[in-house]
Amino acid sequence: MSDDSKLYFASDYMEGAHPKILERLMQTNFIHTVGYGEDRFSEHARELIRKACAAPQAEIHFLAGGTQTNATVIDALLKPWQGVLSADSGHINAHEAGAIEAGGHKVLTLPAVNGKLRAGDVQAYLDAYSADANRAHCVAPGMVYISQPTETGTLYSLKELEDLSAVCRRAKIPLYADGARLAYALACSENDAGLPDLARLCDAFYIGGTKCGALLGEAVVFPRPDTAPHFFTIVKQHGALLAKGRVAAIQFEVLFTDGLYMEIGKPAIAAAARIREALKRKGYALVPETPTNQIFVRLDDEKSGALSESVVLSFWERVDERSAVWRIATSWATADADVDRLISLL
Amino acid sequence: MSDDSKLYFASDYMEGAHPKILERLMQTNFIHTVGYGEDRFSEHARELIRKACAAPQAEIHFLAGGTQTNATVIDALLKPWQGVLSADSGHINAHEAGAIEAGGHKVLTLPAVNGKLRAGDVQAYLDAYSADANRAHCVAPGMVYISQPTETGTLYSLKELEDLSAVCRRAKIPLYADGARLAYALACSENDAGLPDLARLCDAFYIGGTKCGALLGEAVVFPRPDTAPHFFTIVKQHGALLAKGRVAAIQFEVLFTDGLYMEIGKPAIAAAARIREALKRKGYALVPETPTNQIFVRLDDEKSGALSESVVLSFWERVDERSAVWRIATSWATADADVDRLISLL
Amino acid sequence: MSDDSKLYFASDYMEGAHPKILERLMQTNFIHTVGYGEDRFSEHARELIRKACAAPQAEIHFLAGGTQTNATVIDALLKPWQGVLSADSGHINAHEAGAIEAGGHKVLTLPAVNGKLRAGDVQAYLDAYSADANRAHCVAPGMVYISQPTETGTLYSLKELEDLSAVCRRAKIPLYADGARLAYALACSENDAGLPDLARLCDAFYIGGTKCGALLGEAVVFPRPDTAPHFFTIVKQHGALLAKGRVAAIQFEVLFTDGLYMEIGKPAIAAAARIREALKRKGYALVPETPTNQIFVRLDDEKSGALSESVVLSFWERVDERSAVWRIATSWATADADVDRLISLL
Amino acid sequence: MSDDSKLYFASDYMEGAHPKILERLMQTNFIHTVGYGEDRFSEHARELIRKACAAPQAEIHFLAGGTQTNATVIDALLKPWQGVLSADSGHINAHEAGAIEAGGHKVLTLPAVNGKLRAGDVQAYLDAYSADANRAHCVAPGMVYISQPTETGTLYSLKELEDLSAVCRRAKIPLYADGARLAYALACSENDAGLPDLARLCDAFYIGGTKCGALLGEAVVFPRPDTAPHFFTIVKQHGALLAKGRVAAIQFEVLFTDGLYMEIGKPAIAAAARIREALKRKGYALVPETPTNQIFVRLDDEKSGALSESVVLSFWERVDERSAVWRIATSWATADADVDRLISLL
Repeated sequence: MSDDSKLYFASDYMEGAHPKILERLMQTNFIHTVGYGEDRFSEHARELIRKACAAPQAEIHFLAGGTQTNATVIDALLKPWQGVLSADSGHINAHEAGAIEAGGHKVLTLPAVNGKLRAGDVQAYLDAYSADANRAHCVAPGMVYISQPTETGTLYSLKELEDLSAVCRRAKIPLYADGARLAYALACSENDAGLPDLARLCDAFYIGGTKCGALLGEAVVFPRPDTAPHFFTIVKQHGALLAKGRVAAIQFEVLFTDGLYMEIGKPAIAAAARIREALKRKGYALVPETPTNQIFVRLDDEKSGALSESVVLSFWERVDERSAVWRIATSWATADADVDRLISLL
Repeated sequence: MSDDSKLYFASDYMEGAHPKILERLMQTNFIHTVGYGEDRFSEHARELIRKACAAPQAEIHFLAGGTQTNATVIDALLKPWQGVLSADSGHINAHEAGAIEAGGHKVLTLPAVNGKLRAGDVQAYLDAYSADANRAHCVAPGMVYISQPTETGTLYSLKELEDLSAVCRRAKIPLYADGARLAYALACSENDAGLPDLARLCDAFYIGGTKCGALLGEAVVFPRPDTAPHFFTIVKQHGALLAKGRVAAIQFEVLFTDGLYMEIGKPAIAAAARIREALKRKGYALVPETPTNQIFVRLDDEKSGALSESVVLSFWERVDERSAVWRIATSWATADADVDRLISLL
Repeated sequence: MSDDSKLYFASDYMEGAHPKILERLMQTNFIHTVGYGEDRFSEHARELIRKACAAPQAEIHFLAGGTQTNATVIDALLKPWQGVLSADSGHINAHEAGAIEAGGHKVLTLPAVNGKLRAGDVQAYLDAYSADANRAHCVAPGMVYISQPTETGTLYSLKELEDLSAVCRRAKIPLYADGARLAYALACSENDAGLPDLARLCDAFYIGGTKCGALLGEAVVFPRPDTAPHFFTIVKQHGALLAKGRVAAIQFEVLFTDGLYMEIGKPAIAAAARIREALKRKGYALVPETPTNQIFVRLDDEKSGALSESVVLSFWERVDERSAVWRIATSWATADADVDRLISLL
Repeated sequence: MSDDSKLYFASDYMEGAHPKILERLMQTNFIHTVGYGEDRFSEHARELIRKACAAPQAEIHFLAGGTQTNATVIDALLKPWQGVLSADSGHINAHEAGAIEAGGHKVLTLPAVNGKLRAGDVQAYLDAYSADANRAHCVAPGMVYISQPTETGTLYSLKELEDLSAVCRRAKIPLYADGARLAYALACSENDAGLPDLARLCDAFYIGGTKCGALLGEAVVFPRPDTAPHFFTIVKQHGALLAKGRVAAIQFEVLFTDGLYMEIGKPAIAAAARIREALKRKGYALVPETPTNQIFVRLDDEKSGALSESVVLSFWERVDERSAVWRIATSWATADADVDRLISLL
């Protein structure tokens, strides 16, 4: 159970939504619209996203959450005999309770390097598959899944994305990017891949709402039409079709008005930078060091025990019998005062 | 696309949410909580629902939408070799794009009588299965699905529910009720089955939010604990776990404070009664006549064509080459003035 | 458990295989071949079947059994959002333990008329789907499944097959025929649809071995290449790939040498005709009367009880509290003396 | 296509069946029995296997092939939210075209050590899962899959099996052994785990027929009853139920008469030993060295190219640009003269 007296740095989904979103929901509350995303708010939100992505032909769908979006998009893009290539640390491989396999597809893993898939490793896997005389007995690699930022808070550079995209296009398989925390990537000064780059290089990606200031909602973008035929029905079949499609769409309308989505992650990045600096100053080990809103820090069990009395962090993984990695996450709503308190406690 | 100048009677999900819900979302917006439904709002909402259902041991989970809820609950309750008994007109059989089958289960259909499954027909099916020497080659009937109100707006009486429950308990299979529009049943004077009755007679049911005044959300109730082991993980695997669980929970908190859920359907029922009376007075055929917020009326194509210039209704099914059944749905938010305009147009 | 002293008329899979098949298995036993159907026997069997079907481009695969074949072919031909149209009495709907749904697809049923799907009913279903404004929320009809002979022993005429094929081709969906007992259709004088007709009119069908004289095995025929891309891998994924592909192939080699498959059903048809005539003479009700090797006869429980002491029949379905329909099946191996004994017992 | 003039050492499924099996199929050919494994031959074969396994209560089912058996048993033993632990080199992970995932389950991999899962690694995985605060978001490890011999021809010792079994029993999850080539393990002098040991230590295993002298067929053994409720229907749903169950059963009757199954692998082991010795004498690298009927040898591409003109081997995996690992497999039917020819060619 949650406890008011504590500091919350466990995740980036601990608050409601950006105040402008709630305002807009109030303003539009009694306007009548049809359902299932065929309303004017949905269409307007799509138009704003197309513009932000410089992808005038993009097909855009609004779903509720991340695992749902990954399972639905991956199922829509794969043929039944294909699997999806992912870093072993990828969210679909580790923390989605087998949702991809429940849809009948194998997650084919490659070792993550700094949280990322390397284009060369993907190419090598594809080559080995093509060269395997027994490949007809194996799961065919049918798409590539990445996330930006990655599961461990690192970023793909534009060059890395271009390389992955080139590998996929040569192999004629789609590249899909999970952007659950995309606003935090876009807010980083280290980031050199914008939305138009993702639209140009990926065959599908989603722009995260839930962790980036919305009550809930993810916007799936297929930059080129007809990438996923019958996607509406596939979404319905996956239980992912919102009856009141406007509820997600209105939130994206707000996020893509006046460039809010480009800005909303900045306070989180600034807060994370302050915490990171403090941790380093105090001699904590960052594993690895990341530029985004997630910090992974190694803590002795004694220290984490003491901290847990006043701060909620997120357990990540055990290192040895006496220490573990913990995640500190900031968000668009992290208050400066909370950062100060956290730093003083460390 | 939606059009402001029109009247909307197409469905009960054409507006946002009850104003008290938006207010509460605003009030609580910056309170920090943990995710995934383990927060205090979720726990409080559960407590309120347990009380309303007179089911102090009930396990309660908040999901986003109806198809998702049906697919997840049915998958959780059935064994892999079992199917779900449903009226042929049931939502899971007709309008969920095969979501149940996508989960690996057959929908075993029985003819609906006035939109309803009859206990006697269920018993006969179970008996025939038990008596079938080849039953090991067949899908075993593993649970019964009903909805209250039904897909065609009719209501199960308390007696009918008791009979269905008795049949299921003798056969040791669960009875599950889809309550997407449950508030409209509870608001009907004809209704004699309250929430405690559902909790007593069903093994699982869901209390609809999306169509009953929430932005989105359905509350799954297992009146007796351990009905669906590992349900949390099953929800996650189905992509149905809300990261910000509070978003749905806060809405149910409001709906179950001061008996709002018992009242919220009443304006819809009153509006439907006025429209129904007007239709009958003007000689339209109701097929069938229903006591809830959905009216099914037969219209000549000429009439429906004329109406469509100023009213949005929902096409239901063709009757013959010149006429069809259309659905008129009212909601908690239907305005009296709109009802007046509709009646004058008929 | 089986009992030697009894007569067996329960099914057409009560014996081993045609003696020529066992002979050929012995002759070839120590010849080495590669596995998985890439051996010379498989290739030769395919060549013989292509010739018999007048389908020189046909792709042919050998699988072990009927349910497996139906599940694999249907999964290969449907897209994930599609279902298969079938008579409600179809084997895939009634007696395959939900194998189609386990693969994620809904069986869309139409009422059987004399065991058969009518082209007009299929057309009407497709038209209604196309006209349904809500069709994106529904399972799309993606193929048509029939069996020849049907589940109840009746036959499609060439004209009926041509009509079904025409409906499917206009709708651009495949027509698939389950030929578990195809040899018995081909042996009937009433039959006017040969293998080349099936190859011309269907997009896929299978030639039954298990019930037509083989130890086991079914030959899937795709008359036109590339109908089911990656079918080999799909077969493997369904657990339906025979390591010793030759075991099934050699049996089909024998069945398609010197026209054996065209002849093998004839003794069964002759035996069934004698039994049918006797039943009618003695006043039994045939429900319905069928031209193939399966006879469905209504028996008082007293009579069936008495018979069961010396004959093994197959229970079909209860008619009322005192009588039921039983199936009498003959096979390629039915002995004249057994027919005589059965008739004397009736 | 196969070619008579060549030597075949590619696999252990290149011939038909042990001659006694064909003889017995001939002898019993015209005896009538009921279908689906309820016949007297099936019951007798079960009785013989129960005796050989010292497991008088064992439930035994006959299926057609290995991938099918693995997919069916694993699906029957896992709950929907569970996955199966396997060595990364396990057949279910690498060479079954995703059959396990097609059934909705994740294969959870651990690194193979000498082809084997280590009990300590399994324990560590189970411990880490239990200790993981986020485990409800993850696939639960629900059973352990091993094969004996392993995919790379190595053997679990009795001690290793006992350790794995102890780990599983403490965790209350089943241990399942894939015995596709079990006869070759049983024929090894190095092997110290007999059938009664497997029956005592495993919750399910299968005794391979296809690769051990049968035309086809695998015998699934559940040493304790009620391990997999409704298994018959699950088998049917997986398309794995043989209509003529006797076809597989009669083969196991022969294999378990007079201890044939214990002896049938011996010529293969002797032949493999001779080849292995020759390879070592001539300086070839065995990777790894194995005691069973599969030899994995590293060959320069030049050598393998030359050999391929007269011998059919099985490509295993590339080592570098100039060499690869090839599999040489012997079988119950390998002729001494062929071994001599192979050795002279090396």
